[in-house]
Amino acid sequence: MSQLIASCEDNLIHEDSVREAQRNLIDGLTATRLAQIFGALSDPTRVRIISALNERELCVCDLAALLGMTQSAISHQLRLLRTLGLVKHHKDGRIVYYELDDEHIRDLFQRGVEHITHVVLPG
Amino acid sequence: MSQLIASCEDNLIHEDSVREAQRNLIDGLTATRLAQIFGALSDPTRVRIISALNERELCVCDLAALLGMTQSAISHQLRLLRTLGLVKHHKDGRIVYYELDDEHIRDLFQRGVEHITHVVLPG
Repeated sequence: MSQLIASCEDNLIHEDSVREAQRNLIDGLTATRLAQIFGALSDPTRVRIISALNERELCVCDLAALLGMTQSAISHQLRLLRTLGLVKHHKDGRIVYYELDDEHIRDLFQRGVEHITHVVLPG
Repeated sequence: MSQLIASCEDNLIHEDSVREAQRNLIDGLTATRLAQIFGALSDPTRVRIISALNERELCVCDLAALLGMTQSAISHQLRLLRTLGLVKHHKDGRIVYYELDDEHIRDLFQRGVEHITHVVLPG
């Protein structure tokens, strides 16, 4: 990173670019909320739940069977995803079905999958 | 969550749905890598850096000036974003310019913004 620091020591700032970037920069509150959404997806189990719900609704028992986890562990993750607006649910009699909240979530997941198919990540 | 548990106590599993979901479910390694990508975006400062780079390339000095942070703090976050393949850089003389890695990252950011405009999050 020595070259970065060198260029900064020159105090070289591209004023036009910075001004332009400032105009469209998201504010602190929006950044915090976005970080919360992405944070909800920063856990492998929650990512797999989103993957499972990508094309269909499922109940908590289905998800537990699918992922080989306890129902209470799945419920815990679903609660978090629901609080942050990534999944929604509806009841049919005694059964509660979960599905992705909207197309943006489907797209978020899909864009993420597409991204990792073209970069090599550490680990 | 009592109703969820009640439905699970019945061991009600929608076998066809589970089988279908299993066919397209991402594997553990893919889930871990996706979670890493989303984890990189789970920090408000890194989200603002992505926002700043959304439409243009900037050098580390520009970003430091724009976000009111030290160059070393910005460099630290850029290194993490670069390791996970979210931003890339190129050099022009002594200056290192950063830009988003690809269209998927732009889309990830954009879909996230669109999502939070239609849900009310806690906090």
